[in-house]
Amino acid sequence: MTAPIRIGMVGGGFMGRVHRMAQRLDGEYQLVAGAFSADPDKARSSGEALHLDPDRVYTDFATMAEREAAREDGIDVVSIVTPNHLHAPIARAFIEAGIHVICEKPLAVSLEEALSLRALVKKHGVQLLLTHNYSGYPAIRRARELVRQGALGELRLVQVDYAQDWLSEAGNEGWRGDPTLAGPAGALGDIGTHAWQLADYVVGQDIETLSADLHTFVPGRQLDDAAQAMLRYRGGARGRLSVSQVSPGNNNRLQLAVYGSRGGLYFDQESPETLWFAELGEPMQRLSRNGPGSGPADQHASRVPAGHPEGYLEAFAQLYRDFACHLRGELPADVTLPDVDTGCRGLAFVEAMLASARADSAWTALAYPEE
Amino acid sequence: MTAPIRIGMVGGGFMGRVHRMAQRLDGEYQLVAGAFSADPDKARSSGEALHLDPDRVYTDFATMAEREAAREDGIDVVSIVTPNHLHAPIARAFIEAGIHVICEKPLAVSLEEALSLRALVKKHGVQLLLTHNYSGYPAIRRARELVRQGALGELRLVQVDYAQDWLSEAGNEGWRGDPTLAGPAGALGDIGTHAWQLADYVVGQDIETLSADLHTFVPGRQLDDAAQAMLRYRGGARGRLSVSQVSPGNNNRLQLAVYGSRGGLYFDQESPETLWFAELGEPMQRLSRNGPGSGPADQHASRVPAGHPEGYLEAFAQLYRDFACHLRGELPADVTLPDVDTGCRGLAFVEAMLASARADSAWTALAYPEE
Amino acid sequence: MTAPIRIGMVGGGFMGRVHRMAQRLDGEYQLVAGAFSADPDKARSSGEALHLDPDRVYTDFATMAEREAAREDGIDVVSIVTPNHLHAPIARAFIEAGIHVICEKPLAVSLEEALSLRALVKKHGVQLLLTHNYSGYPAIRRARELVRQGALGELRLVQVDYAQDWLSEAGNEGWRGDPTLAGPAGALGDIGTHAWQLADYVVGQDIETLSADLHTFVPGRQLDDAAQAMLRYRGGARGRLSVSQVSPGNNNRLQLAVYGSRGGLYFDQESPETLWFAELGEPMQRLSRNGPGSGPADQHASRVPAGHPEGYLEAFAQLYRDFACHLRGELPADVTLPDVDTGCRGLAFVEAMLASARADSAWTALAYPEE
Amino acid sequence: MTAPIRIGMVGGGFMGRVHRMAQRLDGEYQLVAGAFSADPDKARSSGEALHLDPDRVYTDFATMAEREAAREDGIDVVSIVTPNHLHAPIARAFIEAGIHVICEKPLAVSLEEALSLRALVKKHGVQLLLTHNYSGYPAIRRARELVRQGALGELRLVQVDYAQDWLSEAGNEGWRGDPTLAGPAGALGDIGTHAWQLADYVVGQDIETLSADLHTFVPGRQLDDAAQAMLRYRGGARGRLSVSQVSPGNNNRLQLAVYGSRGGLYFDQESPETLWFAELGEPMQRLSRNGPGSGPADQHASRVPAGHPEGYLEAFAQLYRDFACHLRGELPADVTLPDVDTGCRGLAFVEAMLASARADSAWTALAYPEE
Repeated sequence: MTAPIRIGMVGGGFMGRVHRMAQRLDGEYQLVAGAFSADPDKARSSGEALHLDPDRVYTDFATMAEREAAREDGIDVVSIVTPNHLHAPIARAFIEAGIHVICEKPLAVSLEEALSLRALVKKHGVQLLLTHNYSGYPAIRRARELVRQGALGELRLVQVDYAQDWLSEAGNEGWRGDPTLAGPAGALGDIGTHAWQLADYVVGQDIETLSADLHTFVPGRQLDDAAQAMLRYRGGARGRLSVSQVSPGNNNRLQLAVYGSRGGLYFDQESPETLWFAELGEPMQRLSRNGPGSGPADQHASRVPAGHPEGYLEAFAQLYRDFACHLRGELPADVTLPDVDTGCRGLAFVEAMLASARADSAWTALAYPEE
Repeated sequence: MTAPIRIGMVGGGFMGRVHRMAQRLDGEYQLVAGAFSADPDKARSSGEALHLDPDRVYTDFATMAEREAAREDGIDVVSIVTPNHLHAPIARAFIEAGIHVICEKPLAVSLEEALSLRALVKKHGVQLLLTHNYSGYPAIRRARELVRQGALGELRLVQVDYAQDWLSEAGNEGWRGDPTLAGPAGALGDIGTHAWQLADYVVGQDIETLSADLHTFVPGRQLDDAAQAMLRYRGGARGRLSVSQVSPGNNNRLQLAVYGSRGGLYFDQESPETLWFAELGEPMQRLSRNGPGSGPADQHASRVPAGHPEGYLEAFAQLYRDFACHLRGELPADVTLPDVDTGCRGLAFVEAMLASARADSAWTALAYPEE
Repeated sequence: MTAPIRIGMVGGGFMGRVHRMAQRLDGEYQLVAGAFSADPDKARSSGEALHLDPDRVYTDFATMAEREAAREDGIDVVSIVTPNHLHAPIARAFIEAGIHVICEKPLAVSLEEALSLRALVKKHGVQLLLTHNYSGYPAIRRARELVRQGALGELRLVQVDYAQDWLSEAGNEGWRGDPTLAGPAGALGDIGTHAWQLADYVVGQDIETLSADLHTFVPGRQLDDAAQAMLRYRGGARGRLSVSQVSPGNNNRLQLAVYGSRGGLYFDQESPETLWFAELGEPMQRLSRNGPGSGPADQHASRVPAGHPEGYLEAFAQLYRDFACHLRGELPADVTLPDVDTGCRGLAFVEAMLASARADSAWTALAYPEE
Repeated sequence: MTAPIRIGMVGGGFMGRVHRMAQRLDGEYQLVAGAFSADPDKARSSGEALHLDPDRVYTDFATMAEREAAREDGIDVVSIVTPNHLHAPIARAFIEAGIHVICEKPLAVSLEEALSLRALVKKHGVQLLLTHNYSGYPAIRRARELVRQGALGELRLVQVDYAQDWLSEAGNEGWRGDPTLAGPAGALGDIGTHAWQLADYVVGQDIETLSADLHTFVPGRQLDDAAQAMLRYRGGARGRLSVSQVSPGNNNRLQLAVYGSRGGLYFDQESPETLWFAELGEPMQRLSRNGPGSGPADQHASRVPAGHPEGYLEAFAQLYRDFACHLRGELPADVTLPDVDTGCRGLAFVEAMLASARADSAWTALAYPEE
């Protein structure tokens, strides 16, 4: 009788709830420990609500890493869902304890910090999953597959846009508005990293150089609430990336369009069951997840037939499910997960954006740190 | 330290997997027992894959009901996911053992059988949830709320259409094609009951009489693969219901439109994040789940903010989550779940459809059995 | 130097303006005469606004028919845009004067009247175009072409629905609410005839029998404001037709879905640039007018490339343009226009609907009058 | 008895046909003269097909301007539909002859040439309409009205994207691929000017500076086939403009999104009947042309009720119709038409784009030439 993977969690709030649902959906994980709060009362009540053994409810991550590593039935994996500035310190503690890490994006608040985590991961031989959840969508897996198969021909244009409206007015920012907690990038760090990763995952080509413009529209806000860049890829493609958290009417509108010499793709995260695909000169096709026009990649990431909508939580759970396979050595070779290297690359992207913006949008090299 | 509700399962296959994901998503249930197959090897391997205690993996439901009822840590609830003809016998065994029941639709293969279950449920004081999962959608909860608040005025037209294409050719039917297993209704029983329940749930008015036409298009098929009816409601509304499993290009297209003297609503199950609502003379509004235009009913049934798509599994899980609240006596008063009475009404609908179709589409009373 | 076809008009109002735009768009017609009103002042001012010779502005249709027939430069064609009850008398006058007729639908207010017009048309050897404008849409032409080519296989389901909301309250009916002017059918006569013709044009199969239900929701209204029917086709297909003018949120929503053993089609008049087409088991395709996936039929009916939206007026103008070709003997063989026989068939449909509704929705034969 | 405006045309091909349909639709113009080709046979046959007096069919524009100016019944207006490099010389000839001009965009192939036309227009007191046809769409008129009314609050983001696919491969360019005929800008000149004007028309604010990147993807092509820019507006808004003629799956996809502190707007030219409008925190609204949610601006530009789709030709015709009103001094004060100054501004935009692109995307001032 096998058993689910034992998992612990550091952090709380909305993203904590999302991660727990993602952990549960496929039955691969069992939550057995957690440091949900530094406040003992809050920590205890969270633990109770989650049916945890009170001995395994902690108020600080260091103790948790130490004690769990010491237990015979200690956690196999920790899930980190704190504000950005704590990602690296917490990850470090668990990596050093030999515990695998699932970490919210961005991996760290600086490239330097990220690189040091990467070195640590290699040294300790643990695995790290970075929850760029949108790459768990079946349609995105299918898009990546089509690009890799050459269905679009030579890539020419990559356009990724992410619009939200919840920061259209002052007051909602929480820790995301405080550079000491969120890091130096606002909308860029929060959703720009997702947009970058989505395009990176699908097109599999490196941005060579970018020209960026950041802006803060809402008075009093310390970080950018909108950012955009023009992109030039090594392979010759051009592109753009735009993000905004001040676009009224947009709940969470992440769109990706990729065009090549022979075809084009379009995806809208708010309608994730569909991938639009056109071969040049042929009618636009609506590829349904796990239905007509699907392929191995989206079928792998599906749970139910086409027409039975899967969504955000399923995509999130897919990363968890794939990571479980990965830990067991059973992940199919053509499935790639966002990992510690993705995190380093993402921070290289953020820092290139910030540098270009400071330099009046000068074209700035995006030098991905070699592994 | 509270604990999740202990649940067992009878049956297997695709719907079994769906129910297990629905059970897990919100952490309210723990699967501890099951009769997944009459074949001991299959039963055992299913149990192992689900990390169950081998002692609680059964090969027949009667033994399972008996032994689980006898255990101190026996299951609180059983989930029945077998072919239709077994719903009633299995439900009966567990009800008589004092165990709550979650049952796939339709409740039974005849109204008579359904009524006898209803009597038994009352006698034994257990609860029964019928998994008409589409009524777990937040948009449908919101639609029901708007109708009840009078936002549409006096109801006039109710139009529900359910189209699939997976039975366009012979060969896929499985047990659904065999009247001794599925009961006397084909597409009507499989998806017609869902369509009926969706409309019933939202409009909250009784059909008084209907005129039905059933048809089997694919040669050799024993049951209907398309059905339709014209409807007359007690309150004066008119309507239609149509179902087909032979409509190429439709994965699982369940649509509901409701029009009243002051407004109209439209819902498409394949885009479940949106409820379209128009007040007469005003622009059509896109009501986003848990976002602008939402209300208590869809907020209650939501897990994540608008723009983070929830779907089929979340709607399914919502029934499970609500049923857990119901068992604890904590379900909000304005949330209604499909129950044993819904099942009886659904079979009354099916039998009225069959009777009208046999009578050359004569208008036939839909006499819902009084509780 | 050829010249445009000389055309006159009888009637006014909104439909008059639409017909004049349709006449002008392609430069095939020149409006030279008209009886726009029985009131001499109104008639004169209409004539002036249209730059007509005052001698050719009439106050009654009989005089117009007589005088225009007598002129050497008299009109070749008359366009009739009056309330329904005048269609037949006016058409008769011009047919007897040897003038071709373009007539608004329905052709007449009874089948008997329509049949007598048909006989007259044959006797006098003139041509009659019935402006079922929706059959001028390129996407509808393409749909018809695909059905005729067998792209859908054997037809199984035909579903046509037409919803508007402008009669949701009392007071807007105008002559359409008065049975002495509109004839015995309300929504059925106004938009039901369009819905019937659209399906008839695309599927090219005869309805054998129908079961209908009509209703008047708005108190005080004399004619039906909603109607529906279940349909059985001679070829074995089943179907439905529904119309409503009391469906809030619907401007002018005419939808057609056709499903066969090998494929399906879907068209929505409010998005007329697209025809959705799925071959069984293949992805849904978006066929763009005059673009990828187009065929000779929609290319013939297009003026501009795909992506440059054509609409209602272009579809209307297409009937006029095709009729001009027809009068010159240049219409391609595979283009069929709604004509006097279509008008007779449409009235047979209306009368069968009324008869079935009166007979408690009994299945009623739709006996199309033989030519 | 008034008469239509007498119009002549210089040029031919597809845009000539479009202009003629636009001239005819509303009956405001009568085509009486033309220089359709330098080849006498072609010119004559075009004239015949258009029912023109052979005396008024010319083979060169200079003769046409001279003779038409000399006739008592000479043309009031000329419509210029030639390749770009001829716009200015032809316009000059007719302006100097005192004839009003309707000119295809771009106004000229350089800002200098455009400015000299502007001076000439003022000197001769004639009117010039530049056919930026997308500003004739009712939804765009409504969008402009909402922005001017402050419905969006303070503007923050302006995003305009124009994608086509017809130049994805070499060979279709025609004169548009030859810089001596098209001018120095490819996709930028052809559709970039439309995109710029659409945004300019709706937001009514000046771009202060821009950072541009142009590219040619198809080998052997002399001009850009994709271009993009980041924008900074004088009023503080930021934005982007992107165009491509190498985006497979896009027929003619011109999209505009405008976001402000209090609301957002979205328009897609391929679905022009709808303007999407959201007030911050309220549900997205679908504003239907001339229907619920419409205003004076789109009602003015509509011919038929909501739900009866108007499209590209109607929008084109709207410019013609408005220009006719303008010539009669009857244009409502709040309707603005693209004119000679728009043309100068458009060329200033093009030249700033080219300059920025040459300067490695340096932020470049867009100094609109003062009137």
